[in-house]
Amino acid sequence: MAVTLVSSNRSFKGRQFVYKHASTTTQCDMTFGVYIPDHETDEKRPALFYLSGLTCTHANFMEKSGFQQYASKYRFIVVHPDTSPRGVDVEGDSDSWDFGKGAGFYVNATVEKWAKNYRMYDYIVKELLEDVVPKVAPIDAARVGIFGHSMGGHGAITIGLRNPSKFKSISAFAPICNPITVPWGQKALAGYLGDDQSTWQQYDASEILKAYTGPCRIILIDQGAADNFLEQLKPETLKDTNHAGVIVRMQPEFDHSYYFIATFMEDHFEHHAKHFRSI
Amino acid sequence: MAVTLVSSNRSFKGRQFVYKHASTTTQCDMTFGVYIPDHETDEKRPALFYLSGLTCTHANFMEKSGFQQYASKYRFIVVHPDTSPRGVDVEGDSDSWDFGKGAGFYVNATVEKWAKNYRMYDYIVKELLEDVVPKVAPIDAARVGIFGHSMGGHGAITIGLRNPSKFKSISAFAPICNPITVPWGQKALAGYLGDDQSTWQQYDASEILKAYTGPCRIILIDQGAADNFLEQLKPETLKDTNHAGVIVRMQPEFDHSYYFIATFMEDHFEHHAKHFRSI
Repeated sequence: MAVTLVSSNRSFKGRQFVYKHASTTTQCDMTFGVYIPDHETDEKRPALFYLSGLTCTHANFMEKSGFQQYASKYRFIVVHPDTSPRGVDVEGDSDSWDFGKGAGFYVNATVEKWAKNYRMYDYIVKELLEDVVPKVAPIDAARVGIFGHSMGGHGAITIGLRNPSKFKSISAFAPICNPITVPWGQKALAGYLGDDQSTWQQYDASEILKAYTGPCRIILIDQGAADNFLEQLKPETLKDTNHAGVIVRMQPEFDHSYYFIATFMEDHFEHHAKHFRSI
Repeated sequence: MAVTLVSSNRSFKGRQFVYKHASTTTQCDMTFGVYIPDHETDEKRPALFYLSGLTCTHANFMEKSGFQQYASKYRFIVVHPDTSPRGVDVEGDSDSWDFGKGAGFYVNATVEKWAKNYRMYDYIVKELLEDVVPKVAPIDAARVGIFGHSMGGHGAITIGLRNPSKFKSISAFAPICNPITVPWGQKALAGYLGDDQSTWQQYDASEILKAYTGPCRIILIDQGAADNFLEQLKPETLKDTNHAGVIVRMQPEFDHSYYFIATFMEDHFEHHAKHFRSI
């Protein structure tokens, strides 16, 4: 399956690429960005997957977070996919900003209408990580971490904890931590998975964390204390257990924007770097 | 004259603000951004004015350059205005991306049709610097520098050299250095000033530099070597004299984008800081 270059820009000591490919998982063209630091031929580099929030494409993070500076410094590959299928129209996919296009919620939909395309969980965990990215970037599969913002923070924690052999470190900015109890999550999970709430728990960070028995994970979470969406995010529902710890840092005055994300970006790179060093 | 708050976001150790005001110079509403680092009551801080390039508003720099990190670190106020009048329609102002809206070229137009509103030179040098910004930010008027990108690099060098008592340091990313000899500049200067080319020289960085006899200025210029617009920029036309020096750094592989600007942003803050320290 061909992966086509969309753009390439020199940025710090590396390059910011955008690629497009026909996805077998979502049955449509998917666009993603990847930053690749300068490296020796045949040198493999650690990688971070960054999952974006509601309404974002691959581009917001690339243009607004300033992450390239740290990807260059730490010499990490950083992969940032889109937040939903785009190259296909499903009736109702553009009716609201928190469902459908730009709002895939990193689940595999089971409701028939959405089930063919809205498979962002498998797209990230299988196709993008295992098949597509290795064609364009020299990732060291043993050192891959995952992080994200808001809906993408939800994606990072759920995907990370459910796939500890693939993702060795996890962090998030203002993640949706307990979607089964809040409007954003309830709307998305009911829409994509149907009304049987027992199927929702596999996509709920707090529930997954409670049941988690995999290798030890310490999850760094930054949360703006002045975030208007705090009631939808509920970081207090993430509880430490004997298998995983959660460091929640409430950041006074910060909101939900990329200004917040950019401010604490370096700390997240350091978090992942620290965990990679111990592998 | 009222200055109205449009938005405020915590960013690093400071705040990113956007304000709007009715300009007496351009005879329309103007929007500008200003980053203010945390400071003591009554503490004055040095300031940088950043002028943006063609097609930009006040927002591109604010969202894409990552400058807030350095404004926070150096504790500089940073002011970033729009690139043209917006709240008024002049026939033909939206026909092309390199003239009219988003392309004020930091001149005072004399051609009648444009002369009422397109007065970005006076807007920056007088109204914004002296009247408007002091209402919202505690700038230290003795330590103000100016920089910019492309058309805004042209603006920074011309405004900076023509007003050495107001702007104590100058730098630029990929500036238009000799507009009287290139298509972008010829179109804009003929459009705003008319066909008498003797009136154009007051807005040509190379010509101004040649005739400059003010206090010593060392101008830092970063230029991407892979910039597609290099033929319109002509950094080689800026020549050192006994009154001013030019440091042009050709940066291999870099293009004209904000990825390039972000990469070298910190060096420009350090450049201005160094010059402020010697005041």
